[in-house]
Amino acid sequence: MHPSPFSAAELGLLSPGWASSGATILTGDAALTRALLVIEREWIAAQVDAGLATDADTQSAAAVIDEWEPDLAQLAARGADGANVLIPLLADFRARLMAATGGPVAALHRGATSQDVIDTALVLVTRAAGEDALTDLRAASEALAGLAERHRGDVCIARSLTQHALPITIGHRVARWMVALDDAAEALEGALASLPLQWGGAVGTLASLTDTLRSRGDADPEGTARALVTELARRLGLAVPPTAWHTRRSPLTRAAAALAETIAACGKLASDVLILARPEIAELAEPHAPGKGTSSAMPHKRNPVLSVLIKEAALEAPGHLSTLFLAAGQAVDERPDGAWHAEWQALRSLLRLAAGAAAKTRELAEGLRVFPQRSLEVAALFGDAILSERLAARLGQQLPGGKARLEELVAASLDGGTPLRPALRAELPAESLSDEALDELLDPSGYLGLAPTEVDALVALHHARKDTTA
Amino acid sequence: MHPSPFSAAELGLLSPGWASSGATILTGDAALTRALLVIEREWIAAQVDAGLATDADTQSAAAVIDEWEPDLAQLAARGADGANVLIPLLADFRARLMAATGGPVAALHRGATSQDVIDTALVLVTRAAGEDALTDLRAASEALAGLAERHRGDVCIARSLTQHALPITIGHRVARWMVALDDAAEALEGALASLPLQWGGAVGTLASLTDTLRSRGDADPEGTARALVTELARRLGLAVPPTAWHTRRSPLTRAAAALAETIAACGKLASDVLILARPEIAELAEPHAPGKGTSSAMPHKRNPVLSVLIKEAALEAPGHLSTLFLAAGQAVDERPDGAWHAEWQALRSLLRLAAGAAAKTRELAEGLRVFPQRSLEVAALFGDAILSERLAARLGQQLPGGKARLEELVAASLDGGTPLRPALRAELPAESLSDEALDELLDPSGYLGLAPTEVDALVALHHARKDTTA
Amino acid sequence: MHPSPFSAAELGLLSPGWASSGATILTGDAALTRALLVIEREWIAAQVDAGLATDADTQSAAAVIDEWEPDLAQLAARGADGANVLIPLLADFRARLMAATGGPVAALHRGATSQDVIDTALVLVTRAAGEDALTDLRAASEALAGLAERHRGDVCIARSLTQHALPITIGHRVARWMVALDDAAEALEGALASLPLQWGGAVGTLASLTDTLRSRGDADPEGTARALVTELARRLGLAVPPTAWHTRRSPLTRAAAALAETIAACGKLASDVLILARPEIAELAEPHAPGKGTSSAMPHKRNPVLSVLIKEAALEAPGHLSTLFLAAGQAVDERPDGAWHAEWQALRSLLRLAAGAAAKTRELAEGLRVFPQRSLEVAALFGDAILSERLAARLGQQLPGGKARLEELVAASLDGGTPLRPALRAELPAESLSDEALDELLDPSGYLGLAPTEVDALVALHHARKDTTA
Amino acid sequence: MHPSPFSAAELGLLSPGWASSGATILTGDAALTRALLVIEREWIAAQVDAGLATDADTQSAAAVIDEWEPDLAQLAARGADGANVLIPLLADFRARLMAATGGPVAALHRGATSQDVIDTALVLVTRAAGEDALTDLRAASEALAGLAERHRGDVCIARSLTQHALPITIGHRVARWMVALDDAAEALEGALASLPLQWGGAVGTLASLTDTLRSRGDADPEGTARALVTELARRLGLAVPPTAWHTRRSPLTRAAAALAETIAACGKLASDVLILARPEIAELAEPHAPGKGTSSAMPHKRNPVLSVLIKEAALEAPGHLSTLFLAAGQAVDERPDGAWHAEWQALRSLLRLAAGAAAKTRELAEGLRVFPQRSLEVAALFGDAILSERLAARLGQQLPGGKARLEELVAASLDGGTPLRPALRAELPAESLSDEALDELLDPSGYLGLAPTEVDALVALHHARKDTTA
Repeated sequence: MHPSPFSAAELGLLSPGWASSGATILTGDAALTRALLVIEREWIAAQVDAGLATDADTQSAAAVIDEWEPDLAQLAARGADGANVLIPLLADFRARLMAATGGPVAALHRGATSQDVIDTALVLVTRAAGEDALTDLRAASEALAGLAERHRGDVCIARSLTQHALPITIGHRVARWMVALDDAAEALEGALASLPLQWGGAVGTLASLTDTLRSRGDADPEGTARALVTELARRLGLAVPPTAWHTRRSPLTRAAAALAETIAACGKLASDVLILARPEIAELAEPHAPGKGTSSAMPHKRNPVLSVLIKEAALEAPGHLSTLFLAAGQAVDERPDGAWHAEWQALRSLLRLAAGAAAKTRELAEGLRVFPQRSLEVAALFGDAILSERLAARLGQQLPGGKARLEELVAASLDGGTPLRPALRAELPAESLSDEALDELLDPSGYLGLAPTEVDALVALHHARKDTTA
Repeated sequence: MHPSPFSAAELGLLSPGWASSGATILTGDAALTRALLVIEREWIAAQVDAGLATDADTQSAAAVIDEWEPDLAQLAARGADGANVLIPLLADFRARLMAATGGPVAALHRGATSQDVIDTALVLVTRAAGEDALTDLRAASEALAGLAERHRGDVCIARSLTQHALPITIGHRVARWMVALDDAAEALEGALASLPLQWGGAVGTLASLTDTLRSRGDADPEGTARALVTELARRLGLAVPPTAWHTRRSPLTRAAAALAETIAACGKLASDVLILARPEIAELAEPHAPGKGTSSAMPHKRNPVLSVLIKEAALEAPGHLSTLFLAAGQAVDERPDGAWHAEWQALRSLLRLAAGAAAKTRELAEGLRVFPQRSLEVAALFGDAILSERLAARLGQQLPGGKARLEELVAASLDGGTPLRPALRAELPAESLSDEALDELLDPSGYLGLAPTEVDALVALHHARKDTTA
Repeated sequence: MHPSPFSAAELGLLSPGWASSGATILTGDAALTRALLVIEREWIAAQVDAGLATDADTQSAAAVIDEWEPDLAQLAARGADGANVLIPLLADFRARLMAATGGPVAALHRGATSQDVIDTALVLVTRAAGEDALTDLRAASEALAGLAERHRGDVCIARSLTQHALPITIGHRVARWMVALDDAAEALEGALASLPLQWGGAVGTLASLTDTLRSRGDADPEGTARALVTELARRLGLAVPPTAWHTRRSPLTRAAAALAETIAACGKLASDVLILARPEIAELAEPHAPGKGTSSAMPHKRNPVLSVLIKEAALEAPGHLSTLFLAAGQAVDERPDGAWHAEWQALRSLLRLAAGAAAKTRELAEGLRVFPQRSLEVAALFGDAILSERLAARLGQQLPGGKARLEELVAASLDGGTPLRPALRAELPAESLSDEALDELLDPSGYLGLAPTEVDALVALHHARKDTTA
Repeated sequence: MHPSPFSAAELGLLSPGWASSGATILTGDAALTRALLVIEREWIAAQVDAGLATDADTQSAAAVIDEWEPDLAQLAARGADGANVLIPLLADFRARLMAATGGPVAALHRGATSQDVIDTALVLVTRAAGEDALTDLRAASEALAGLAERHRGDVCIARSLTQHALPITIGHRVARWMVALDDAAEALEGALASLPLQWGGAVGTLASLTDTLRSRGDADPEGTARALVTELARRLGLAVPPTAWHTRRSPLTRAAAALAETIAACGKLASDVLILARPEIAELAEPHAPGKGTSSAMPHKRNPVLSVLIKEAALEAPGHLSTLFLAAGQAVDERPDGAWHAEWQALRSLLRLAAGAAAKTRELAEGLRVFPQRSLEVAALFGDAILSERLAARLGQQLPGGKARLEELVAASLDGGTPLRPALRAELPAESLSDEALDELLDPSGYLGLAPTEVDALVALHHARKDTTA
């Protein structure tokens, strides 16, 4: 292997969970650099109508950006001098713009501070990658809605503390996954929609901008400054915050919480699949795909790689989330001394994990293989004992010996003794409980509670939510 | 010291940040136990109209609860057997109720599972402690609104990366703290208002309850079951979820995120106070209170103990938040195998930290001592150099030598050479810049940007938000 | 329920994982208070030989402590005033001591600062609870060593990414758990053994103490001061640090890392048990114990409550660990402004989780029910395909069609087609592979690699380590 | 900007804290890929003496690696199929090797599993980046030792809870930073030295390798297998573990804890510098370096960028540490289902943060500007009141009114009333305390406790530790 100018690059080699997701590129250093430059360009453009910039300035800026491929590794290294990358990037941009136009473009970065541009770029990247995640999340949920309907009444066993508890239906299990994804999508959509522009200048007061306007004779420099900021927000499609949020970081922590909720919802589903696809259980399997999850050393293996990588995300995300909330609480002064810098990579990691998890959850949901017959077999593992809750309630009184006797019969049946039905039959006179009534009592499909009808309600809710957000 | 039956108790000895806050009691083991019992009582009461319980049952349950002081240490120890405390508590309650009524009360805990009662109790405790925090947060914000108005135009220095940047006003600094508290209050109020009841039975389907209703001849057992749950929610003042959330934990993670945002908002304010109350800066001081923050060993010391304890909360909270999101993503099966249990203490810790931080922030905001004269002195530390941004913009062109020369003059003034005003005067002919114009340029109060008017807007927003939520 | 003076108390109601462990009391507020008082007493005693205190002082201090039951709730509330509980506790102690002796005892707390006493108390509590955990960890490991030997050669299936991989032995699985516990025990023992005394006075220089000695005419006040500190360390059984560690927190972070390693080792074991005790797998079961893990509602259930609570600890611990390392990095100045306070509860939580996890792991290891016959059945689930790795290596060449053909045969056998043995027999001429040779190839017990002999080596290593540490 | 094949790359643009440190390249995807290939090459080489590979195999492997520049982005994307990158990398390597040698090289990856190679590569990368950090840590500590000696007796003020407490010396402050760095270096060196090889095959038993040896007629296949593994460890300079650690992750968590201790030690130092370099305090300044920390918008600013970026690392690291300990506790089965994958990026992040923090700490320590005169001025801020602890001890008795009167005098002096010396003089008769004695009492340099001599001892300890580890 030869050394390369990109030898320090990270391309996702240690992150198969998101390396091939769309968000990888949307959140890469190149995308971030482009966002930084686009914001600078749009800020020039926003000043044109107020006479602070010319159309030619905007066009030159656009042309410079389009032609330029910044040396990211070198920029990253230079970024250390001022503790952020905008400083060298802006210097290079300024030089290129001057070379292109033959003189300084005063409108460039006018009245702004590095944090304005970097925070806004983080917001743009968050929106882009977040929307990518949202698309996959919604598609996953849609696939689950279909699955839930299809298996609305297919009996399977529900488990608590790893043990068989009571029957439910496959559709109910799937519908609950769906609700969690829909909840997360709603939260994420809300967080993305309210992402604000950051534009306040060195200390959040637009002092330089208003001073420039005043010195140019503007009659209402504060009003004009506000209008310029609003125009920039309009151009970037962002909300206008009531004041700069250089040290009020809830815009980022709220987005982070929605991303973490997304990852947790996917993680719960994937953790279930990892259990249900174990060979001893085998109620579900991941989609077949050539080359996916196979082992060349052990040809008999079919690894649930989608679920493994989603679970990975669910284990990694909480650490990043905690960093963002920590940084928010330590954002001292008018612009912080390290807490701000600590947010960047944590936010990007959350975005990548969320987008990767959503993409893989979609792939999983759309191709999930469901084996209802196997679920029935698994549910029969404990025989009729699985209905012991019902039997205790319904026969506890009439059985001679009461509930204590029932527990003995259940235990005996589980330990290989008389199965529960004949045991009950032997102790209960036919006049107190007919064979038909006993059969009915022991039918798991008669003890599903709300499961099937709740599937209908949850699927209807899913469709109603889609209509709202569409 | 004698051994005592409470020798394992924790009473906040290691948590001065919340030991004396109202939420300490609201979140204690006794409050939690009471919530568990109240839920069981209300569930009996909710069944009366449907004929599944009698008024006498309800009254007996109420009487038993009122007279009973459970041995919490013993309950806690017994809780290990089934991995939760409801099991022994319910057994004791059942026995006491039977002793009181002379027979079993079938309505007790009918169709419910431990997780239903524990999750709902956590929700009730969250609401109670959360509302306690909310009250303090709002009072703190109200005090800050007053402070912001009072110091709307009082100049102080803004800092970035710890260094003096540009002038702002004390009112602007305070107003930004206020916005962060108002944001957090809004988020917290929303999260508390949507807290749902948990009531789904062993696997979330109400199988037992509907089966009981069916066996009693109910024509619409599912409808009746849903109505009973709705009635319980009404009695407890909680939302009715679309389905049980035994393994869909967003109700808790959302509350946790709002609590963490609250703590971060308080933490940012306290971290600022810790800086500004340093003796070398001394722009602010914590409220005087007898015995508070004094050191008997060092009588000259006045420790900012409120801020110290709020900052402590901001350092502790992120770890608890990460545990809740982690647990949400690992909530396997229909009821989890440890992830659920891991949430309890983390949630309680967040509640206590949030309520303690809010209480201390209120105390701090209501008694904060502000020294505008000292702020002016501090802002003058760098002399006129503090306006170097403005000077570069306004004089960069006309100064012989341009911006580079200005930078030399600034550096010389900071290094103890000629102060900036005479230095500029010496280089700028009076005809290009009059003395008056130079004075104006060097007046910090003329370079505040939006600060004063934004204070007005933010305070108005604060009052408008109050009206909405009142 | 009546309100009680202890109504804010926490007794482990939300922490069944440690509520009944020995460490609950060792880490309770009472134990901590006692440690604080004992340290103050020993400091008086340490001064006697130097003539700075009298035996009567020591005896009075001891008598006061023995008779006194401090009101912990009230102390906790008063602790908020100075941000730590030692201040009011010391005030009360001083008053009681004065009442007992008729005058001030100058030796009390001489030259010390609150942090000296609190840090040292945390260290004492850490050692006590840590040793409690260590005892259980070692007993658990000893039980596992026995199990490993007993099942040295019993074949079971090893899994990777949840899927069946290759055969190993039950003993090998158990021996690897054992090594992890032994590693953790070694780390924990080392961390506990090096726990240092904290004794530096207000800023870590013993200024007050040396000044007192100097003013009393001590010829070598620094030497005497150091000797006094060494004597206190000797009395408490603690190491003497090279300098005060008020803001150098590695003594605590190292203990915390060892506790977290302990919890992770237990957590891995418990997570395995949770999988292997699932009813569909059932290779293991938790110990039978009356009332443990049973469900009154569902008599057929036997919940693996020990493993559930150990896994809970493994999910909770990382958040606390992160708080301690965070605090260590933010320990500013000569004594910190909140970072120190944030450590206390995090450390206590880790101690409780570690001690609880170790106690439950011991109970689990000592009573674990192992079902080798069931393991064999489970291992046979994929038939001979489980040896596909071996078959590929050994038959890949001679099989007509090579490895690709083998993969087809494996896939067909797994999909319900011809079992692998007859399929291979059909394709391989007997002269190239005899029936005996084929049988041998397909015998899982012949493909165990180092497993059985490594069990011997690991158990021997376990015993050797014991001898070293005994 | 044009799209580029590296458009998803991350080059440290968001990580100025480590983007320009040596560890950036040592931990990049290219370095990791190279480590993976080198391990495969060394494993071939290790087999030569046993007759399982030829020298030609080794040479071919080396030649292929040297000539090959893998397409990392494409590899990363392909890695998703099997949830790790070794699978496609090995496939490509196998194909290239076959093309080079004209046939399969059986020794390639013989008996190994992906996790063996990836874990060992992580270990190699950890060692390389860890040693890089260690070098910088030691150089930083050496610079601090010099500083400590130089300022051994220079008085400055020590602070607790942000407030002035007592005098210490600059040397003492610096020496304590030095001890923390030395402690961390010792911990890190120990952790790096014990990093083990991972080599166990599919389930950690070397089943395939021993089976191959047996089938080739090896008389002691287990012994030979162990010898081969030992030879590989020797070639890579790694320890041989007692058994595979696929699911016993203490080798990684211990390295992680040492890295986190390193970052915390640097973070504490940097946090102090951030305080002490505030303009109102100005006892220290970061090194001057052209272009470093300057602001083009505000020429008067000199940002402490080194400390800001070190503090950033200290805020980010705890989240990654918690992920590694979490993963260790969830490493189920014989090879985990996501927990393993979650470790990779967390470990790399810790390495980069540690190496970056150490490099910046070195730069900071080597160029730190110390202003003893300014420290004296700052220490005089409270006048003689700063010695109130001493005055209380020494004059508490003889002053009419005792300690209470002293507190009044202290308070009056702080509130702008009579300075403490004349106030004391007025109340104390000259015969009870001479002017000289009072001057002596009020001399901060006479109340330094052990500070100066402890500096000597700590610097001597520093040098002694170097000798041990050299």
